[in-house]
Parts: sequence; C-alpha cells; structure tokens
Amino acid sequence: MKLATIRTGTGTAAVRVDDDAAVELGAPDLGAFLARPGWKAGAAAADGPRHELAGLDYAPVVPRPEKVFCVGLNYRSHILEMGRELPQYPTLFAKFARALVGAYDDVELPAGSGQVDWEAELAVVIGTEVRHATPEQAAAAIAGYTVANDVTGRDFQYRSVQWLQGKTFERSTPVGPWLVVDGGTPGEISCEVDGDVVQKADTADLVFSPADLVAYISGLITLAPGDLILTGTPGGVGHARKPARYLSAGSRLLTRVEGLGEQRNTLVAGG
Amino acid sequence: MKLATIRTGTGTAAVRVDDDAAVELGAPDLGAFLARPGWKAGAAAADGPRHELAGLDYAPVVPRPEKVFCVGLNYRSHILEMGRELPQYPTLFAKFARALVGAYDDVELPAGSGQVDWEAELAVVIGTEVRHATPEQAAAAIAGYTVANDVTGRDFQYRSVQWLQGKTFERSTPVGPWLVVDGGTPGEISCEVDGDVVQKADTADLVFSPADLVAYISGLITLAPGDLILTGTPGGVGHARKPARYLSAGSRLLTRVEGLGEQRNTLVAGG
Repeated sequence: MKLATIRTGTGTAAVRVDDDAAVELGAPDLGAFLARPGWKAGAAAADGPRHELAGLDYAPVVPRPEKVFCVGLNYRSHILEMGRELPQYPTLFAKFARALVGAYDDVELPAGSGQVDWEAELAVVIGTEVRHATPEQAAAAIAGYTVANDVTGRDFQYRSVQWLQGKTFERSTPVGPWLVVDGGTPGEISCEVDGDVVQKADTADLVFSPADLVAYISGLITLAPGDLILTGTPGGVGHARKPARYLSAGSRLLTRVEGLGEQRNTLVAGG
Repeated sequence: MKLATIRTGTGTAAVRVDDDAAVELGAPDLGAFLARPGWKAGAAAADGPRHELAGLDYAPVVPRPEKVFCVGLNYRSHILEMGRELPQYPTLFAKFARALVGAYDDVELPAGSGQVDWEAELAVVIGTEVRHATPEQAAAAIAGYTVANDVTGRDFQYRSVQWLQGKTFERSTPVGPWLVVDGGTPGEISCEVDGDVVQKADTADLVFSPADLVAYISGLITLAPGDLILTGTPGGVGHARKPARYLSAGSRLLTRVEGLGEQRNTLVAGG
C-alpha cells in the first residue's frame, strides 16, 4: 500500500495511491493521518474523492514532521573502504521541516554554497508514538519507508564541527513520492546525476537498521507519528570524488530505492 | 513587557505578565500569538481574563517552536582562555520541541547518561518571519529574549561527532519563564548548582550577537515567529572542571540573566 500527501487546489490531502487513481483519506496530510489510531485499516478501506495519477502534485510525504533525524556514516562497506572502524553508536543530526520538498519538486541551491552534493537515502516514517522501545516495539512503530536525498552544502557543513548548517537549507531535501506500507524489505539504493550513476548500494548494508535507529532514538526522545529518520547515504558522493563533482543550476537528480520508487528533481538557483 | 505561556485547567494560554497579574492574550500559546501581525500592540492593549501571579504554572515560553537552533562556542573570553581562535562562522546545532520544559519544571535526567551538565544561555525569540535578513531586518525580527539552560548529556554528546543526541533529551531544557520585549540589553548571565555559582559572564561577550545569528541563520532557512535561538554558554560547565562535576537526581539548578529573570529547576530521574 502506498500513501502520500498531494497538493490540491485547496491545500494538501493525504491519499492512498492505487494503480489507477489516488484516493483521499480525509486528512490534510499524511502526518495528520498517521496520528490517527487504526490508520492502516482506515487507509486500506478509504473510499474518498479520487484523483487521476497523471496530474498528481506530490508534497513531501509528511510535509511538517515534528522531527527529522538524519544519520551519518551508516553504510558498512563505505565505512570499511574508508579505513574506518564500524561505529558503536549512530551519528545523529537534525533537519527542519522547511528543508523538505516533494519527489518531483525543484531543489533549491542554497545561496552562497559552491559545493552542493547528493546523498541518496532510505527514509523511515514513524507510524506510532514510541519511547524507550524494545526492538520489537521499534519495528512495530515503523509505518513504512520512502526515498530521500539529503542534499548537502559541503562548504557550509564543514564551516564548523556541527553539520546542521549544511543540512537544513530551505527546500533542499526531496522526500517521497510516497510511503510504502507493508512493502517488504527495501532493496538497492541508487542516485543518478545528469544520467550518470553516482551511488549504488544495498540498503541491507546499513550498520544501524531502521529498527535499531528507532529503538536508539526513542531512548533519547519520544518518536511521534510522521517523524522521519533518514538512514544515511552510501559511498559515491561528489565531495569524495577526484576531482570533486557538485550540483549546479539545471542538474538533474534521480534518486531510487528498489521496492519504494524514485524521485526526479532539478536543481534551481535559491530564492 | 513580559509575555509567557501558562498552563491552565483547559490547556495553555498566552499571557502578558504584569506586576499584579497575568492577563490572557487570546491565543493558546505564545508561538501562536507571535504569528499574528501587530502582536506587540495587541499584547500591550490586551485586557483578557486575569490570573494571580502566585499560582502561575509556566510552560516553555514557546511550547512547540517550529525550530530551535543552538549555538556552540560563542563566548569570547571562554574561547580565548581555551587557547582557541575566534570562529569565523557560528557553530549551529538543533534541538526538538519535546526537549523543552518550563522555567520551574523538573528537568529529566536522561536514562543511561552519567554526565549530565549545565549550560546557562541567553535565548532569542523570533517575532517576525525573516529570510536573508540584513542586520537591520535581523534586529527587527527579534521579539525579545528569555533564559534557557541547554542541559547536556556529555557522554551522549561525544558518542559521535555530532552533538544532537546529547542535546535533545526529552524534557531536558528549561526555557522561560517569560519573553521580555523591549527590555533593553540583557546583562550578566549566571548559573548556580545547589547554591554554588558555577557560571558567570556578560552576555555582551558573545562573538555572534543575537542579530548576527538571526541574519546568518536566515540565510540558510526562513526563521518563523516563535523560533528559538539558544546563543551558547560561557565557561564554567561541569565537564571542564577538575574533577568534573555533574548533575544528579535532586540537583537544584538556578539559571539567571540580568534584566530577564531566572529559572529554578530540580533534576529528577527520567521516565
């Protein structure tokens, strides 16, 4: 089952995306919908107004999540190839909701950055409030998965020891197009820039799995329905290439996770 | 003028705190109130239901800010005494709204941390949406100031290179009791633990001033009414003492900024 937030003439609406149409769920966005008890059965049974697939305008899967946690250094093969040891604890940082855009929206190049880079990521969407979760509770709190690209200004990321300022640029992070519920294990993750495959890895190669991350983070703070966890990016980012490669106005970004779907975004000059 | 969010029998309410009573402003919290155009004149003129000062139960000044930015390494004298150079850019990290508590609430010791430390801070409250602000626009976007303590689990802070996980524990960060509007320049900042003065500095010693921070951050992302910026802590934290000193259940924390007010919090075991 695929759930999304679409933009309509009067705002946004949570929808179930079927093979032939999108069906409204009666909530203003997917974050509000996931906060309802029994949302999964309600989504399966929903029979609201319908929208043709061809004309859908996807908002970020959850447009205003209470929290967006991001994870660094989480692909085993990439850590080992860099000569580092596998970490004992996840590296966590944050992003604010205004950084999010939809799966086919333009991505804004932040003003003043000359080193804008890609980071294809598997993203977890929380479906149940959870605190101090056991592994089983953590797994059960996951509503499902979506695709994200943690587009990063490397120059800003490294202006200080804390990465936030290179990670939370306005309208920089596509998330979507949809949340896949009960879709099985996500597969290969890949990123293409202007048609070149720049990242390709297996999401099973994560050091900290989605459930590990939910359990760990819930020991710090309550995770709430609609919260997002971006689980980290594999090797192949532009900053690590020799010579380095960055995004610029007109760059086309394709981010895909097998079993989940894909995003297509064009980079544009920031506002 | 002092504005706050108080807890009432039916939820929360934004209030103006006068010398003899608190007067309701007709908004559910101060974040919602600051989003109204002309909030300053509206606050001055408000004549809603009144509450006796003695019984007030203060929520965080803004209970659910869209964003909480925190600043590291921002007191000039402390940076220089550590033998470091003054930074060219602010060190920014984030905190999520569930980390906030009121000025007299208990502060929860995070489960699993044995190194809980204090960080008295001057906090900025945003009063106008602002993006790519000039210095003048930045200064005008500041609604006023309040007091905060960025209580930190040092062990969690240093589990990875990103500090977030030691900084956003549930119910760890007192903010308040009130927002001071048009109160002049804040003065001395201090922190006492169980009656011992552990931090004392002048808020004029900031490397990046409140307006500097608003201008800089607004170049990354839109700042919105109710957003908070915790401007960093001076020397005297427990982790840097020899021997180190930490907070434990029953510790009493007093955080004060001259011209703004003070907070009194007791540390309790986390949930």
